[in-house]
Amino acid sequence: MTPQPPIDTSYIAGSTRLFAIVGHPIDQVRSPEMVTAEFKRRQKDAILLPLHVLPEDFDSVLPAVMKVHNLDGLVFTVPYKVRACALADELGAQARLVGATNAMARRPDGRWVADMFDGLGCVEAFRRQGFSFAGRRAMLIGAGGAGSAIGVAIAHEHPAAIRLHDIDDGRARVLADKIRQVDKSIAVDIGPPAWDGMDALINASPVGMLDDRRVPVAASSLPPGLMVLDAITKPEKTGLLALAEASGCPTLRGRDMMNGQISRIVDFFAY
Amino acid sequence: MTPQPPIDTSYIAGSTRLFAIVGHPIDQVRSPEMVTAEFKRRQKDAILLPLHVLPEDFDSVLPAVMKVHNLDGLVFTVPYKVRACALADELGAQARLVGATNAMARRPDGRWVADMFDGLGCVEAFRRQGFSFAGRRAMLIGAGGAGSAIGVAIAHEHPAAIRLHDIDDGRARVLADKIRQVDKSIAVDIGPPAWDGMDALINASPVGMLDDRRVPVAASSLPPGLMVLDAITKPEKTGLLALAEASGCPTLRGRDMMNGQISRIVDFFAY
Repeated sequence: MTPQPPIDTSYIAGSTRLFAIVGHPIDQVRSPEMVTAEFKRRQKDAILLPLHVLPEDFDSVLPAVMKVHNLDGLVFTVPYKVRACALADELGAQARLVGATNAMARRPDGRWVADMFDGLGCVEAFRRQGFSFAGRRAMLIGAGGAGSAIGVAIAHEHPAAIRLHDIDDGRARVLADKIRQVDKSIAVDIGPPAWDGMDALINASPVGMLDDRRVPVAASSLPPGLMVLDAITKPEKTGLLALAEASGCPTLRGRDMMNGQISRIVDFFAY
Repeated sequence: MTPQPPIDTSYIAGSTRLFAIVGHPIDQVRSPEMVTAEFKRRQKDAILLPLHVLPEDFDSVLPAVMKVHNLDGLVFTVPYKVRACALADELGAQARLVGATNAMARRPDGRWVADMFDGLGCVEAFRRQGFSFAGRRAMLIGAGGAGSAIGVAIAHEHPAAIRLHDIDDGRARVLADKIRQVDKSIAVDIGPPAWDGMDALINASPVGMLDDRRVPVAASSLPPGLMVLDAITKPEKTGLLALAEASGCPTLRGRDMMNGQISRIVDFFAY
């Protein structure tokens, strides 16, 4: 027999525990390599796969996938974050308030527990920089899917104040209500982007994404102590981040938020 | 942020095509590492996963798994090789005759085609040693699941003669009929194990497996030109193979059959 060149496939075996990200489309997702790397870092015999499920198949395929005995958790991405809530036996606090979930885990008793980690990734990214929202003042631009998750997650950290801005005033009001449901002592207001007196400025709107050269704040410089996070992943350095850097502000990128989120999801998946 | 050590997860991405082996239990299967290694050898962005499906869930889970859009093929192991036939839109010649399937692939038109490769792995192992069954004489011991698949696969190679032996005479007769259905010109007979005048001797019975020290032939030596294959994988060198080696016979092991089969299954999965 021809000797076969050594090919390392130690990452997959009969004993490997399965996790999967469910989306449509699926080719662009980064969770398979990123979450799997986090499993390896923690020396878990586990892998996260891409599962491409068509919208018309979601309701029949997901309950069956959840019966696969060596599959312990699911991540949900576009367009399934809202729809996936119906699959869970129990929704965590973030998922209930946001009305969406992006991770679900099977517990030892067989129950499926789901929660929303989009916002927790933002909080985790700040925490890794030594920044806590407790008692601080935050400006949040964008109250859509990502912004709502971020607002609710920050609210759980008990900041002193949050100002919200969205081009759709109604969405901002809905999020303000959710924040007050988490902690009614937070001073929430709605208004144009502000930075003076703020500790953190977060863009969760699509302004600055891809070829959009706009910056979501009408400023020529920012206060140097302000922590600035832009949730956008493409481009890596948005106009807002360039302005923040030029102003001497510490910055966080979409990628930092994603890393923070992956760490929190793998904690949630811990088995 | 703490720099993260480089962990290679290039084996999984959003674009990776999925294949899976379905069984119960699943921890012991070797296909995930072996088939995935064969994909890598062919530079395919694909992985084969273990899917642990319980018998009571098989009928509801499998049709759903087959709808996963980036899943292109399935391997079936114990106890699903017979049951899986019902899932296919089309059965290949080996699967139809054997009444079992161990690999199913989605074709570009969406149809699922299944066939049985347990026997083809044996033929492939011999072929890799430069041995063709065409016009030759073969002794096959064991006419159960593995033996039937091997008998049918050898029959497709048009040997001159096949002698069959099984402790259950009825099983041997059923296999003899299947062999005649493939090629009625093959001289098939049923009787005790013979080796004189044979070109190949194959053990597909459990005699010699694990702690069983027996040898399935009552011989103190074998003719040196005889090719001897033992389908047993544990132990690697059975009593029959030790006898064959001592007699100067070329030998093939269960592992060679498995390698041969994996190569044929990946050909079948080619996409």
